[in-house]
Amino acid sequence: MQNKQISGFSRLSKQQKVDWLLRHFLNDDPQAAADLKKFWLANTELQQVLDSFSENTISNFVMPFGIAPNFLINGKMYAIPMVIEESSVVAAASSAAKFWLPLGGFRSEVIDTVKLGQLHFRWSGSPERWAALFPAISRQLRLESTHLTANMEKRGGGIRQIEWFRKPEIDPDYYQILVSFETCDSMGANFINSVLEQFGLTLKQWAAESESLTEDERQLEIIMAILSNYTPNCVVRTSVHCTLADMERVLKVDRVRHFANKFATAVNIAVHDPYRAVTHNKGIFNGIDAGVLATASI
Amino acid sequence: MQNKQISGFSRLSKQQKVDWLLRHFLNDDPQAAADLKKFWLANTELQQVLDSFSENTISNFVMPFGIAPNFLINGKMYAIPMVIEESSVVAAASSAAKFWLPLGGFRSEVIDTVKLGQLHFRWSGSPERWAALFPAISRQLRLESTHLTANMEKRGGGIRQIEWFRKPEIDPDYYQILVSFETCDSMGANFINSVLEQFGLTLKQWAAESESLTEDERQLEIIMAILSNYTPNCVVRTSVHCTLADMERVLKVDRVRHFANKFATAVNIAVHDPYRAVTHNKGIFNGIDAGVLATASI
Repeated sequence: MQNKQISGFSRLSKQQKVDWLLRHFLNDDPQAAADLKKFWLANTELQQVLDSFSENTISNFVMPFGIAPNFLINGKMYAIPMVIEESSVVAAASSAAKFWLPLGGFRSEVIDTVKLGQLHFRWSGSPERWAALFPAISRQLRLESTHLTANMEKRGGGIRQIEWFRKPEIDPDYYQILVSFETCDSMGANFINSVLEQFGLTLKQWAAESESLTEDERQLEIIMAILSNYTPNCVVRTSVHCTLADMERVLKVDRVRHFANKFATAVNIAVHDPYRAVTHNKGIFNGIDAGVLATASI
Repeated sequence: MQNKQISGFSRLSKQQKVDWLLRHFLNDDPQAAADLKKFWLANTELQQVLDSFSENTISNFVMPFGIAPNFLINGKMYAIPMVIEESSVVAAASSAAKFWLPLGGFRSEVIDTVKLGQLHFRWSGSPERWAALFPAISRQLRLESTHLTANMEKRGGGIRQIEWFRKPEIDPDYYQILVSFETCDSMGANFINSVLEQFGLTLKQWAAESESLTEDERQLEIIMAILSNYTPNCVVRTSVHCTLADMERVLKVDRVRHFANKFATAVNIAVHDPYRAVTHNKGIFNGIDAGVLATASI
């Protein structure tokens, strides 16, 4: 067996990468080579686009793309694309859509779309001093990032709020600026990170140059300027609603009250028991994940 | 626009499904039809296998399949398959693998593999009464599921532990049996669910037939018998280790102590700040997810 270390792998051609993998990990098995190739798309131009989406690509991973029809959402009909290898998820979604269709379907509303980013830094000045200086700093941060925020503001977005926190449990000199953003219809990751990086530059320069600061206070170290993926105020609520009589009519069964009670108990178990809550959410995310993947919203 | 509701969609042929989608949602656009078809695999037999993985399939969702080489894990070299559309994730993984290679690589160990399942039920008897009866019930549950557990036991697995809980906050009569399983090299979802369903049958029958029970105690309602996806004791720990001197040699830079301190601070921020913790984990899961997807471990 030859040495399995390699330098400059990413600079090899696709065929060279496949050859290297076959030689070092797949015993030069011709079947393995054929297996890798049989997922390549016949359209070479399209295949090249796919290859360029990632690094060190040697084949494709192909998942079935299906449709769950009959979704009535806010009064409009949809056929939801779902990418998942578990047919029961598509079947369950289709079945739920069909059940709720004559009962008014799904009501979905955007509660809020706040996205967040943080500037983490070290500063040896006192919190009282920082609190006094902050209104001016905040104005300067906004001012010096206008070249980045102007377009987003035209679209109705931009910086919503700038707050600050100390967390001495992290470090006696640890400070944080927490920024709320409205990024309209975009995810806005690049926009948020660009603004935060500008905030970092502005803040460092402000500290270095402010004549009112002491020598110690001029030392300000930026640790990280980056968006947060935890956005508890970026929320959509979707609900369904029907009466027991409606349910009886659609399901055409007796004992719907018993079924509804059992359902309520199952939900209540998940409220109080994390083992059930995780399982419950896993089931829900099976469907969400398939929709997210199909719409390339990852 | 015709009615977008449909019955019996799953029974249509693939072409009929595509046609229905084109007519009702894509304005019969020939380009949309071509777009759906250009991702079909040339090999029709292979395409049929893929189609059968899910329901209502009309096309494929194709993701680039790449390789991150140079992973030294527990002394053995690996090239890790990664399915992701973000080249920076594969590049970062490859770069980390290369960095740690001369420093001994990754050490990975299975801490434990306990999987869990729950039997949720309602029983009106007292907890004291249940506690007294439980040893005998527990034996009977094991006994009547031996036809399901025998093979797993031969492989070294089976039922590890049977516990019970009450959660009166859910319902005054709510009881739960929590079962720990060892499923060896398998995920074991079907195994766990089958055993729990048998537990449900056994428990219901025991309640109905036990002569020592009162009339009230004979009423036992099974709410759910199902595995849990929350498995806090199913854990693998992976670590890397090197000295500052090692790091200086590999990175060929000064100020590694400063870099290491900054890194430690970044980790410490994530310990105390959920906004950073989630973002931190999202970065880690970018890599895990790509590996999980590539190995179809979902």
